Amino acid sequence: MTDSPRTELDPRRVDGARLWGRLMEMATIGPGVAGGSNRQAISDEDAAGRELFTGWASAAGCTIAMDRIVNLFVRRAGTDPDRAPVMTGSHLDTQPTGGRFDGVYGVLAGLEVIERLDELGVETAAPIEVAVWTNEEGSRFPHSMMGSGVWAGALDLEGAYELTDRSGISVGDELQRLGWIGELPAEARPLTAYLELHIEQGPILEEAEVEIGVVTAGQGYRWYELELRGFPAHAGPTPMPGRRDPAQAIARIITRVHEATDDLAPWARAPFAQLSSEPATPHTLPAVVRCTLALRPPALEVLDELEGRMREAVGAVCADLRVDADVRVLSASAPVAFDPATVDVVRSSATGLGCSAIDIVSGAGHDACQVAAVAPTAMIFVPCLDGLSHNEAEDITPEQAERGASVLLEAMRRLAA
Amino acid sequence: MTDSPRTELDPRRVDGARLWGRLMEMATIGPGVAGGSNRQAISDEDAAGRELFTGWASAAGCTIAMDRIVNLFVRRAGTDPDRAPVMTGSHLDTQPTGGRFDGVYGVLAGLEVIERLDELGVETAAPIEVAVWTNEEGSRFPHSMMGSGVWAGALDLEGAYELTDRSGISVGDELQRLGWIGELPAEARPLTAYLELHIEQGPILEEAEVEIGVVTAGQGYRWYELELRGFPAHAGPTPMPGRRDPAQAIARIITRVHEATDDLAPWARAPFAQLSSEPATPHTLPAVVRCTLALRPPALEVLDELEGRMREAVGAVCADLRVDADVRVLSASAPVAFDPATVDVVRSSATGLGCSAIDIVSGAGHDACQVAAVAPTAMIFVPCLDGLSHNEAEDITPEQAERGASVLLEAMRRLAA
Repeated sequence: MTDSPRTELDPRRVDGARLWGRLMEMATIGPGVAGGSNRQAISDEDAAGRELFTGWASAAGCTIAMDRIVNLFVRRAGTDPDRAPVMTGSHLDTQPTGGRFDGVYGVLAGLEVIERLDELGVETAAPIEVAVWTNEEGSRFPHSMMGSGVWAGALDLEGAYELTDRSGISVGDELQRLGWIGELPAEARPLTAYLELHIEQGPILEEAEVEIGVVTAGQGYRWYELELRGFPAHAGPTPMPGRRDPAQAIARIITRVHEATDDLAPWARAPFAQLSSEPATPHTLPAVVRCTLALRPPALEVLDELEGRMREAVGAVCADLRVDADVRVLSASAPVAFDPATVDVVRSSATGLGCSAIDIVSGAGHDACQVAAVAPTAMIFVPCLDGLSHNEAEDITPEQAERGASVLLEAMRRLAA
Repeated sequence: MTDSPRTELDPRRVDGARLWGRLMEMATIGPGVAGGSNRQAISDEDAAGRELFTGWASAAGCTIAMDRIVNLFVRRAGTDPDRAPVMTGSHLDTQPTGGRFDGVYGVLAGLEVIERLDELGVETAAPIEVAVWTNEEGSRFPHSMMGSGVWAGALDLEGAYELTDRSGISVGDELQRLGWIGELPAEARPLTAYLELHIEQGPILEEAEVEIGVVTAGQGYRWYELELRGFPAHAGPTPMPGRRDPAQAIARIITRVHEATDDLAPWARAPFAQLSSEPATPHTLPAVVRCTLALRPPALEVLDELEGRMREAVGAVCADLRVDADVRVLSASAPVAFDPATVDVVRSSATGLGCSAIDIVSGAGHDACQVAAVAPTAMIFVPCLDGLSHNEAEDITPEQAERGASVLLEAMRRLAA
């Protein structure tokens, strides 16, 4: 963005100070111990956060509605009754040690767009809506993108009500306790387009020194549990060559799968996590080594290629070492290609405002990935400090916040014109 | 061993049937669920096992004494009051899922030697003793080779009394409850030699189709805990090259350390075990990966070389991946070279009896490794099925049992002559 002199009503810019002030005020609800927030979904803190937000939205003259999975929709009317809304949105719930921007930024920037349009006296043909999707994080109730998933038809409403937290309280119980009753059906309705503004949650934009990420796709993932079973021989007397050692096997498998992701760089990723072995003694070779692996490709054909390479590595290594292997799929989510025309609007809005921008693939899941199934969708990323997220130290600058919201303003105005 | 016709009093053979019968009878004390034994040290089962053994020893006319760490010594007198005893021994305690032979075989074979000498009317110049060392396994009270360690001066008596099991009961408490009071000082006294007969607990003799292992040395070990700390970034958006991933690091380290053991084959061993990682989520790269590593070399210079190679691998891999590493030594035991002259007696006794024999290094710790510090020591191995031990399915044949005990008889007779 160029350093043109700023006026109170620069039509290309949101009010960065107002946006920043609200971000900081929202962060005081469910404050974390290290400067972030703990505002988990469908909790007293989530209720307080929503109350703060709807207070601002009401003051801005918006209509507010809630659907049966308690997604909130804040609406600024359009002039053409035949045009479907241009929607933006994200979520107000956080991880248990969440930052101040993940989700919140997209919601408050949406409200900022509405208020700025009001201040500028700009009317749009299509209505402008801001969605607050319920339980995006899936931290308390274990289904991420729950509200947008129900809305987009990927998840059953009753199934969502029955999800329970670790103390056995269900979504339904908690909605009743909080008195949240949504009137709208929890299902998709026509949209002109859906945009979501979010912090990148990764280091790419910062390292590239670029202001805006034009998100063309969301990585899919397939999560696997690998269980490798060898023979728990006495660790001393058993010669190295004859061992059926699952620790040796997992070492080779990790290295080979990482070689596959190198071959499919830069978007293919394969994090191994949750390593464990039994028995818990250094005297005996492991009988079992377990770990999880999340293959994260940018497109389905890359996922299939990666899975093939992974299964080939497991097969070859385990045959060589006479180790038995089970590879189980724990869950999966298909990669999402965003709508090229909507992506183009984001790209040209960013460059039209003088921002440096590159195309990027989202490595994390977002509500936009659900909405993309039922509406033309795109996302806008801004860089975040050190690529850090899901961490109270998550940070962006006021300038970055303003810049991303201004791109959102520009893109929504064009889409709703 | 040749198939010469067997007579009741073949001077080259023990009474294999008696030995086998006693092995099977001892295995009924603390019976395991899968055909083995659970007779952990200084327990009611251990007491019952010792009572059975001392009953046999008393009936054989032996004197029985106990020292202050409740090592038992069963003695057959010699003819020369100036000669120090020739001792054999092992242990009667087992792993929680122990086999019928680990330890027990060496003790009962020692008693068989005494009874066979009696039956043959052979007097020896030096006394013959059979030691039952207390808590060799270290399963209940966490110090393996405890009794022989105290006796040989490697472990403090009071420190041994203070060892506690998982429920907080100490060795001292349990000795008091059982009423075990040893009179002898728990310290080494002069021996002509010490021999220990044991199952191999590994597959080498069986694979080589050899009847007797002449044990020239005991592997030492150094146990390490490795802790690798990376950066727990979001597993999706973080590009593969920039990750500080301790799972990637441990994979490379395992492979490099195994290459080092290949270079130092066949006796150098490096089992990795007890793998774990945090946090327990597939969404986030591991912040920490931990594992143990037991370097097991046959000689000190190999240990130093192995440790050097391991530290070099950890250093290089972690520098490359920007992962922090701690390598902590948890415990260590120096490799033991057995006494060449005593080893020669074992070798020539075996071959003199017509047994096929090869030299071998013990991969497991044994009481002999402690005694070697204070007396000329050697060990005799017999093969065991599939090299399996510390497992209820541990097995040897009656013929293997008789053969090993006959070699022990021959070697002790020579040493005590």
